[in-house]
Amino acid sequence: MYNWKEVLNQVNEALAAMPFGRKPAELYAPIRYVLSLGGKRIRPVLMLMAYNLYKEDVGTISSQALAIEIYHNYTLLHDDLMDKADMRRGMPTVHKKWNDNAAILSGDSMLVMAYQYMMKDCPAGKVADVMGLFTETALEIGEGQQYDIEFETRSDVTEDEYIEMIRLKTSVLLACALKIGAVLADAPVRDADRLYRFGESLGLAFQLQDDYLDVYGDPAVFGKKVGGDILCNKKTYMLINALAKARDDDKAALEEWLAKPEGTYAPEEKIRAVTELYNKIGIRELCDRKIRYYFDQAREILAQVDLPDSRKAFLWDMAQSLLGRKA
Amino acid sequence: MYNWKEVLNQVNEALAAMPFGRKPAELYAPIRYVLSLGGKRIRPVLMLMAYNLYKEDVGTISSQALAIEIYHNYTLLHDDLMDKADMRRGMPTVHKKWNDNAAILSGDSMLVMAYQYMMKDCPAGKVADVMGLFTETALEIGEGQQYDIEFETRSDVTEDEYIEMIRLKTSVLLACALKIGAVLADAPVRDADRLYRFGESLGLAFQLQDDYLDVYGDPAVFGKKVGGDILCNKKTYMLINALAKARDDDKAALEEWLAKPEGTYAPEEKIRAVTELYNKIGIRELCDRKIRYYFDQAREILAQVDLPDSRKAFLWDMAQSLLGRKA
Repeated sequence: MYNWKEVLNQVNEALAAMPFGRKPAELYAPIRYVLSLGGKRIRPVLMLMAYNLYKEDVGTISSQALAIEIYHNYTLLHDDLMDKADMRRGMPTVHKKWNDNAAILSGDSMLVMAYQYMMKDCPAGKVADVMGLFTETALEIGEGQQYDIEFETRSDVTEDEYIEMIRLKTSVLLACALKIGAVLADAPVRDADRLYRFGESLGLAFQLQDDYLDVYGDPAVFGKKVGGDILCNKKTYMLINALAKARDDDKAALEEWLAKPEGTYAPEEKIRAVTELYNKIGIRELCDRKIRYYFDQAREILAQVDLPDSRKAFLWDMAQSLLGRKA
Repeated sequence: MYNWKEVLNQVNEALAAMPFGRKPAELYAPIRYVLSLGGKRIRPVLMLMAYNLYKEDVGTISSQALAIEIYHNYTLLHDDLMDKADMRRGMPTVHKKWNDNAAILSGDSMLVMAYQYMMKDCPAGKVADVMGLFTETALEIGEGQQYDIEFETRSDVTEDEYIEMIRLKTSVLLACALKIGAVLADAPVRDADRLYRFGESLGLAFQLQDDYLDVYGDPAVFGKKVGGDILCNKKTYMLINALAKARDDDKAALEEWLAKPEGTYAPEEKIRAVTELYNKIGIRELCDRKIRYYFDQAREILAQVDLPDSRKAFLWDMAQSLLGRKA
């Protein structure tokens, strides 16, 4: 069995060995670029670790592991274009480094490559299950992105709607990665489904933690500037609950900050003020409890997977590491 | 056996019956919209007709036929966005009717849906062949689109490069449609390959005819305004050859027209002048001969398919109808 750092090394080696011989070179340059920017490679690592719960020869499914990472990076590429984001992982995004059309077209080819790698050497008896799940997941992720876009212009987003959006946009891909790994390893159907639900809960905890760290993270560890969501009024778990729970003066103060035109205040001033309002309304504890809720849920579901705890230790270790928590 | 008009009716019925129950509705509205705009449905019709060479139950592969039409319309949707085209089939394009992000995201979901339909009820023993060919074709089409974009800013595109670009951008999808139909009907491998090459030649003739009709077409029949390619200096087969073959005064006159800034002339004036230069240099006959060359090639390849001529009559009838020619 491999721990998650060993698996991560295998994923990075497989990524580095990906052939890029097709032409025209200009089409594939942005694809190489985004895949070379690094990242935690969470999805392929989860897939290989789920497979490794049952089988040792994780190299057998390295095409499928690459597929899910190519797919994930395609979503980042197109989402960054849609969000007009200039930077990703400290480097210019594809539409900034090249142009919008390069981002559209090379992203499209990445999605096709994801299917290419997912199909490659996939056992005939499993193709329908694997491709069916991957395709359903890709549709759900598009739906999650659409909700995310729609929420930007809505002021009445509920907590439930938000959780469903992040489930679609983030969680189902973690779940899909785990289940494909399990299916390819001939896991019992019930346990493959449990691993799917483990991924869903883990993904929800992970995305909520991202919201939380945007406000309360240590900038040195978080990797992004703290307060970005506050500055652009992003309807995160924090803001949605703050708006729902704030009363009287606090509510008025929060709404005033949301309505203030950019440029009429110093950014740090808005970040500090909104963070203080969150603290006062109890949003920090609320979000922390919700993360813990999904984290515990993930642990309980993993406990139901019919394998000895020792066999599941590396996977749980990775989950804890992802969330920076101990259970 | 069905003639191509009967097959076209079946395709249109299957398209009209496609369920659109998923949410959010805003994501799927542009998809319904582009699929409802009509068109000749050439690719699904070719797929079903190739299948019908061998088997009668064409309804068995209606998912795959829908898949290829969904795929084709996704390429139009994203190409129109990249080309900033306002209209398609007399109606506003998705990025005009909605916005750029809707065009990106709903196009992406269409590509996933194309895979969904291509997988659906695909016999286990054929999934690898069908999905492999479809995926290779989708990569090639992206490559063709990239060449098309690159050619816009190059002044030294050769005829061979142009033919390869339209082969990738247009022909391989017709070829893929035909071969998938044949494979699903258990056609002999050699004949499935011949049908692929038939589609390639037919596609080249078809695309060259599109170039030709942009200059010499009857506007009432062509369906687009004549002269559009001339006005935007599009490097078609006509222009590439005119630049290569023009001498002295003709060459100078042609280059002068290409260099003239928009707004300094009446559009009809440029269309008339460039068309007259084409006529003088012999481009009309050259293009007509080249269309005939690929049309004859298609006929010869189809003749090699090991079936009685009577069995292939409907397919050849469709090819002739597509090109408005009799062999």
